Amino acid sequence: MTGRLTVVGLGPGDQRYLTAEAAAVLADAHALYGYGAYLDRVPARAGQRRHPSDNREEAARAAEALHDAAQGASVAVVSGGDPGVFAMAAAICEQIASGPDSWRTLEIVFVPGITAMLAVAARIGAPLGHDFCTLSLSDNLKPWPVIERRLDAAAQAGFAIALYNPVSRARPWQFAAAVERLRRHLPATTPVIFGRAVGRPDERLTVTTIEAAANEAADMATLVIVGTRETRVIARPGRSPLVYTPRAIPPAVVEVSA
Amino acid sequence: MTGRLTVVGLGPGDQRYLTAEAAAVLADAHALYGYGAYLDRVPARAGQRRHPSDNREEAARAAEALHDAAQGASVAVVSGGDPGVFAMAAAICEQIASGPDSWRTLEIVFVPGITAMLAVAARIGAPLGHDFCTLSLSDNLKPWPVIERRLDAAAQAGFAIALYNPVSRARPWQFAAAVERLRRHLPATTPVIFGRAVGRPDERLTVTTIEAAANEAADMATLVIVGTRETRVIARPGRSPLVYTPRAIPPAVVEVSA
Repeated sequence: MTGRLTVVGLGPGDQRYLTAEAAAVLADAHALYGYGAYLDRVPARAGQRRHPSDNREEAARAAEALHDAAQGASVAVVSGGDPGVFAMAAAICEQIASGPDSWRTLEIVFVPGITAMLAVAARIGAPLGHDFCTLSLSDNLKPWPVIERRLDAAAQAGFAIALYNPVSRARPWQFAAAVERLRRHLPATTPVIFGRAVGRPDERLTVTTIEAAANEAADMATLVIVGTRETRVIARPGRSPLVYTPRAIPPAVVEVSA
Repeated sequence: MTGRLTVVGLGPGDQRYLTAEAAAVLADAHALYGYGAYLDRVPARAGQRRHPSDNREEAARAAEALHDAAQGASVAVVSGGDPGVFAMAAAICEQIASGPDSWRTLEIVFVPGITAMLAVAARIGAPLGHDFCTLSLSDNLKPWPVIERRLDAAAQAGFAIALYNPVSRARPWQFAAAVERLRRHLPATTPVIFGRAVGRPDERLTVTTIEAAANEAADMATLVIVGTRETRVIARPGRSPLVYTPRAIPPAVVEVSA
């Protein structure tokens, strides 16, 4: 009897972001595991077990789901966004690496989803239209000096930056510290986008500058995109502005930012 | 009479990656614009105009689609992957920025899709499970020294790296030069993944090391992921290996890579 474990990305909080493959996997699974708020987004189906858990219990959830699959069940572990971007896919791999041999012979499938930075970028234009970095501001699992060094490197080298997990109740100062760090390298007018709860009824999008960014409210549901020297804002009469990073870097700009 | 222009991400080359929103937009549009090979993926619909163009004609395609929408049509511009990642969204914004005032009052919508790096990562585990950079190796629109500086910055700071457009007929040496550059900063055993034509019948996935990477065949349909010092490979009896970047960076590792 061999089970199967699928790690499924739901995308941001709306059914319109779901891929055809993700919908099929969710309908077929014997058992669903995930953070309760994500499981609530999946339509109920008779005969399907549900195992909600808390947001921070990723390792335990991964182990339970693997154990269930090893007993022969077809198990789906749900992730918000994409499972491979600061989500459940790495937690599942970590458990397999340290778990019993039987977990290494299981069929494991990862189903990608729309991660938050792509959804936020799409709401505002193309701020990630050129080279960019994707960085979590959580120092729960990595030391803060590593985050500072990565912020410096990304801004100095001219990458746009997508910031995940900017703030939480337990991490109140990190976002302001990151903005302060980025200001050392970027012009004061560099565009910054706050995308909160994209695709949900309480969605809120704000465009500001790196100079003013620390004053904006961010929370666990916010994804922040910091532009580059080249990022532009197009004002539009009667419509929200478009923000984009051009595809080309002219040689003159290279001199300035070198 | 007011038109509407939607920039739609198809994801990699298979219908299973299409989101519900993208499918709805494609079915409703009066006219479709895009690279011919992408348009061929969209099911035909009676009464819908199709305007295929060559791969390199992004600016002209964007201008034509905007002109069409400004005449009152509901126009969809299709992109492979996600339109905001090295694709049509920035080209559309650039045209609006430099085009007639009437283009600024048009309704413009961007529909995100599964970009290649998420699809390749999902095929192999979670190589982008921690902080990462996304970089195009094409020096058509930016000087090669900028690319070198970004490769250095990304590898030195410990980001995993997703490389788009590694090679083309007109750019034969850039990928090997990039690998050589990355070798200066990364241990020889750092895992590297080649994902070619993911989701298509001729899909091919290869896991190698940064030491051996320059010998692998890459082409325009290949997405390359370079791991970090922490990226691990799990060998699995009878199955392909899993590659993942752990969520945690222990303090000891920080000392080594500082």
